[in-house]
Amino acid sequence: VFTVLCGGVGAARFLVGATAVRDPAQITAVVNVGDDTVLHGLHISPDLDTVTYTLGGVHNDELGWGMTSETWRVMDELTSLGGPTWFRLGDRDLATHLYRTGRLAEGATLSAVTRELAHARKVRTHIIPVTDDRLATIVTTAEGELLSFQEYFVARRHDVAVVAIEFEGAPRSSPAPGVLAAIADAERVVVAPSNPLVSIDPVLAVPGIREALAERRADAIAITPIVAGAALKGPAARLLRELGHEPTAVGVARLYRELVGTFVLDERDAQLRSDVEALGLRCVVTDTVMSDPQRAGALAEAVLGA
Amino acid sequence: VFTVLCGGVGAARFLVGATAVRDPAQITAVVNVGDDTVLHGLHISPDLDTVTYTLGGVHNDELGWGMTSETWRVMDELTSLGGPTWFRLGDRDLATHLYRTGRLAEGATLSAVTRELAHARKVRTHIIPVTDDRLATIVTTAEGELLSFQEYFVARRHDVAVVAIEFEGAPRSSPAPGVLAAIADAERVVVAPSNPLVSIDPVLAVPGIREALAERRADAIAITPIVAGAALKGPAARLLRELGHEPTAVGVARLYRELVGTFVLDERDAQLRSDVEALGLRCVVTDTVMSDPQRAGALAEAVLGA
Repeated sequence: VFTVLCGGVGAARFLVGATAVRDPAQITAVVNVGDDTVLHGLHISPDLDTVTYTLGGVHNDELGWGMTSETWRVMDELTSLGGPTWFRLGDRDLATHLYRTGRLAEGATLSAVTRELAHARKVRTHIIPVTDDRLATIVTTAEGELLSFQEYFVARRHDVAVVAIEFEGAPRSSPAPGVLAAIADAERVVVAPSNPLVSIDPVLAVPGIREALAERRADAIAITPIVAGAALKGPAARLLRELGHEPTAVGVARLYRELVGTFVLDERDAQLRSDVEALGLRCVVTDTVMSDPQRAGALAEAVLGA
Repeated sequence: VFTVLCGGVGAARFLVGATAVRDPAQITAVVNVGDDTVLHGLHISPDLDTVTYTLGGVHNDELGWGMTSETWRVMDELTSLGGPTWFRLGDRDLATHLYRTGRLAEGATLSAVTRELAHARKVRTHIIPVTDDRLATIVTTAEGELLSFQEYFVARRHDVAVVAIEFEGAPRSSPAPGVLAAIADAERVVVAPSNPLVSIDPVLAVPGIREALAERRADAIAITPIVAGAALKGPAARLLRELGHEPTAVGVARLYRELVGTFVLDERDAQLRSDVEALGLRCVVTDTVMSDPQRAGALAEAVLGA
């Protein structure tokens, strides 16, 4: 049994690799919900959808979000109505949000709905939102604006200076059913190569998760999301810098040092090995850039078999 | 200035005729909201949409609901997810519901949103929901089940015996801004050829509307929705019978006798003229079957010029 703490795209790629080299039914993905938002009345869970779509083979790799074979009839009509279209929702993708919102309105939990959606897409990996409670990542800009994660990430294209990140609702949230057991019982717990500040931190902000992970430190392993001082995607390096962390793999390793015993460094950063080890972490150096499923499988083998 | 109390399709057809023979900007449609429903978290207003789509030239006449040039990508995907698809929502149509739901969540009133949607579709007729408050038509079946209007009408295809109809929320509702003035100031108030029990009754159930209409009885005129003992569409005749009314134009005239001074009978029912007049109503006999816009225009001319 393996458990992976997940954000969106990077985590999903790792899971593709992991499910290629291990039985998908033995893998649990615990997924960030701080990016979740309500738009047009619809409950949207971007990271859960990215993971589910990717494992279901219907993720739109070209766009980097949403579904394959997508069309935009609803958005086109909404545009003609003068409605808000900064958050693009494809027609197929919308069906997911209609389904989720309808089920939540009926009283189903987010984890139950997530299970149903994964089942419908024939995904055997267990996908669990870290919590069924409301948890919202809120970004404070240098101008003092409070932005929801999607306002920051999509509407502002993360092109704005950030001075603080908070997780609204986190103190009152509880881990979803199965999350603590998935961490406690796993042969190995993996922190996916996701943004540490806006993808992994909200997962750790749910009371009990950080402690559960620290308990498993010896068997926990984090994969760097930063290679050669840059994120492969998104604002991780910039956010690290703005929030006072070193924008390198070592800066990330420092954030995780009390939670994981092993850190996976990219081979392009091999010279940082001693800096990581100086933090009291074992260090694995390998190719972490999952540019195709084969490379993702090789990384997963290195991580799960480490 | 003319005001029309409206349900869906029959009213919309009349409005097409009315706007052909009078300035659309001088016509106000006061529309039923008892059919409104929330599905997948989306606020759906079937009668408001039927009226707006029809006047905007985008109503799907073949289906009898929804929009022209419609596609079903979202519903197809929702079907594959095992979601509820008994209430078919086309892709273009969905944009309306996303827009409405988003604006309502922002705090806009239903009448403000309705105005915006009509404006976007270049409709000059004033379309106003009878109330901005929640009002839900609830049908009690002979088996004692309580059904929302859409459950009754769409899911059960109105193929079930009804023993009562109630308008939940009506006692606490208020007319939307402009509704009472539209009735008070109109040269003529028209009760559209809509279902008297589930389209017009919920309009009259909003406190103040019935009284406002009765005040204008001399200038108010109702068009029969029943021709030769049958409704042109829907369950009006059956409902009249089940709820103890005569399932004929005379039965409808009896329901409206204190509210309108004139009743429009279809020429196929000319022999009922004396029965209608015996109720104390003036009677106009003409072709009420609006099988094309020309006939709708002729009916509107007969009604508005009566």
